[in-house]
Amino acid sequence: MNVPIKIPDTKNILADIPVQLPEELFTSLLRNDKFHIERIISRGHANAKNEWYDQDHDEWLILIQGEAVLEFSGQRALKKLQAGDYLLIPAHCRHRVEWTDPDMQSVWLAVHF
Amino acid sequence: MNVPIKIPDTKNILADIPVQLPEELFTSLLRNDKFHIERIISRGHANAKNEWYDQDHDEWLILIQGEAVLEFSGQRALKKLQAGDYLLIPAHCRHRVEWTDPDMQSVWLAVHF
Repeated sequence: MNVPIKIPDTKNILADIPVQLPEELFTSLLRNDKFHIERIISRGHANAKNEWYDQDHDEWLILIQGEAVLEFSGQRALKKLQAGDYLLIPAHCRHRVEWTDPDMQSVWLAVHF
Repeated sequence: MNVPIKIPDTKNILADIPVQLPEELFTSLLRNDKFHIERIISRGHANAKNEWYDQDHDEWLILIQGEAVLEFSGQRALKKLQAGDYLLIPAHCRHRVEWTDPDMQSVWLAVHF
């Protein structure tokens, strides 16, 4: 018996980005009981000084497009990210976005788990 | 008490790609009990006719770089993918790679779960 199969829908991670980005744009791509895949679009956005992410969960993060600089709490050195760079940020590893390129959209893919 | 924090290591998804790719290259980026993130590099690789993937698990897939064509079992239409395209391939949705660009590396990021 042949069960009709629906071709999976395809979307593009660079689509549906508004021209104006007054704030960072968070878009959920896939969420289930194991993890949450999220797209984040930045354009010149950054955290304020002393504004830290301190998450209860681990996060795997890749910068698909653009450039960014992250700061990690207690570390003097900043971490510059270029397109294709990925890293695992463990839970409660306090971090903040120091800088993102103001001249282009930086596109992140985050897997929260 | 300040616990010393190690800055997360950063790697690049376009790094460590051999010049010669006689076969597709599969590299595990992160594996835990919830999912497995894998990088796949193709350059002109494709499945043979009637060679199908029929997986027991769901797979979320994004083409980071390159171009590819997928075929889904029972569907006449092929699905062309360009950089940034992503899709969810449910378990037992039989599919195969019909074509990948022979002139550049196609870089996939797959989340198996």
